[in-house]
Amino acid sequence: MNTSEIVLLAHGSGGSQSHELVERIFIRHLGQPSPALEDAAVIPLTERQVVFTTDSYVVQPLFFPGGDIGRLAVCGTVNDLAMRGAQPIGLSAAFIIEEGFALAEIERIVLSMRAALQEAGTSVVTGDTKVVERGSADGVFITTAGVGIASPKTHIGATLAQPGDAVLVSGAIGDHGLTVMTQRQGLRFESPLQSDSAPLNGLVAAMLAEEPDIHVLRDPTRGGLATTLNEIAAASKVGIDIEEATVPVHAAVQAASEILGLDPYYVANEGKLIAIVPKVAADSVLRVMRAHPLGAEAGIIGQVTTEHPGRVVLRTILGTHRILDMLVGEQLPRIC
Amino acid sequence: MNTSEIVLLAHGSGGSQSHELVERIFIRHLGQPSPALEDAAVIPLTERQVVFTTDSYVVQPLFFPGGDIGRLAVCGTVNDLAMRGAQPIGLSAAFIIEEGFALAEIERIVLSMRAALQEAGTSVVTGDTKVVERGSADGVFITTAGVGIASPKTHIGATLAQPGDAVLVSGAIGDHGLTVMTQRQGLRFESPLQSDSAPLNGLVAAMLAEEPDIHVLRDPTRGGLATTLNEIAAASKVGIDIEEATVPVHAAVQAASEILGLDPYYVANEGKLIAIVPKVAADSVLRVMRAHPLGAEAGIIGQVTTEHPGRVVLRTILGTHRILDMLVGEQLPRIC
Repeated sequence: MNTSEIVLLAHGSGGSQSHELVERIFIRHLGQPSPALEDAAVIPLTERQVVFTTDSYVVQPLFFPGGDIGRLAVCGTVNDLAMRGAQPIGLSAAFIIEEGFALAEIERIVLSMRAALQEAGTSVVTGDTKVVERGSADGVFITTAGVGIASPKTHIGATLAQPGDAVLVSGAIGDHGLTVMTQRQGLRFESPLQSDSAPLNGLVAAMLAEEPDIHVLRDPTRGGLATTLNEIAAASKVGIDIEEATVPVHAAVQAASEILGLDPYYVANEGKLIAIVPKVAADSVLRVMRAHPLGAEAGIIGQVTTEHPGRVVLRTILGTHRILDMLVGEQLPRIC
Repeated sequence: MNTSEIVLLAHGSGGSQSHELVERIFIRHLGQPSPALEDAAVIPLTERQVVFTTDSYVVQPLFFPGGDIGRLAVCGTVNDLAMRGAQPIGLSAAFIIEEGFALAEIERIVLSMRAALQEAGTSVVTGDTKVVERGSADGVFITTAGVGIASPKTHIGATLAQPGDAVLVSGAIGDHGLTVMTQRQGLRFESPLQSDSAPLNGLVAAMLAEEPDIHVLRDPTRGGLATTLNEIAAASKVGIDIEEATVPVHAAVQAASEILGLDPYYVANEGKLIAIVPKVAADSVLRVMRAHPLGAEAGIIGQVTTEHPGRVVLRTILGTHRILDMLVGEQLPRIC
């Protein structure tokens, strides 16, 4: 490959090649930050609550069915904002790139980011690029941060689950994690698996328009549904009962998880949310979720209880009960 | 080393070891985000302008005289906000850590971040940790983002330099870059070199209190003073004349740069700023800068001109003129 087509250390120098890279790929696809050539973005503001989040993305492989590291980096940060009831007003994107990485791959990633940004209705307003020597990183790592705005009336948080509340999930679980793992193992299945990576801010806006008093919203990423429910149970000092028969799992995910020995309940999702809402609002919120393309497979999967505080209990299809613990150890490194 | 003392892939899992790492080191030293266990921070807000920035830090070595990667990651982002006239209201910190990295080193880095945050009067309000396999990263990379607030009256930007304006620098140049390079080469000099890494938001607040109409503020990091001045000249479509005799350079930096064949004008600074101000305000701004501990060696080093637009011209100590170009290629990889 011609050296003009790969990332060189000079692309991280801050000098002329850095400018070339920024102009040739980042500004070309993500638009010109306004004003240009500043390290920080100024965002005009109303009187709302500001929400701020960050995540690093180190997924391997970088490209997989249904997404890639760029799509994940946008959706993950948009979703972290959405889980606090906020709509994004701007994202940052910081790239750490291994020397020798193909510029065409960077461009492919950035184009995917642009598509995801359009779906979410937001943009990258500030960024950074560093290049490290061959062997000092693994292709590319992307860290996004996001600033969002929420209504001052919105009070959503992991500590706010109340006994009696209904637990909803926006769709089938395990797709992202199983897709990445099967790619990494070089496995192929009859039913093509596909990552669910998607920006959930539109779905959340529709849900909040229907029911402003949503208690908890969380996206079950690393650690999966089981770990996220455990975090909520611990933070709210409540128990959570889940009905296995009501938890949607695609057949291809079930098949792949059996072959790989992975439990879909502990596998990362990148386009799903858990909502905990007052019981009286459960049916209307569910209806709104199902009317949205990203919530078509939504369901009510359980309820919050005063029993076994801090624990999540699964009633299995066989009618037995088992404790769904938090993930221990590393099941799936570099899943996002 | 005991495996309980090093970073394992499980520390990036999102499960119980991730929680342990966050609680044992991050929350312990940086404080509890409020509310806990959320991926995004809500920041109560006034009616001011919001400023938003990000940078990744990949410096090698991780520790050096006068600083370390953690101090850089805080100061760099605080300074990017300050260069837009903003005071920080919260930072994010995202860590990408190589499996096997010592937790004690992470802790040392986080403690250094805490000290820098205290100097800047701000805090880390949200964060993330990913762990990659041995050989997939080089120790630790840190990406910080920052949200700041500026007065709606503040208009500072690289496009706003006006012919006739004075060009000021807040102190001697080249200390950070030469310090890191001599450490990397294993060199030692008689006069100990030390990075200038420092948060400049206090200095900027004092300058803006004296003169609200500052036109340009920039911190000359990667690419150094010469590259930053070129960026300003290009963005403002003006020429800049610099008087070599007035540019402060420490003797140890001069000596090290001669031995290493590096030009201090192209070397990164991490605690210095360039200010471009109306000529009538130059003396009063300089007085305020010199009264601040981080501006004791400040000086007026040149002026903005209508001649040679887009170019920076240095009048040397010998009285000759030479064009100070933008950095081409990579002089100093992984300097920040």
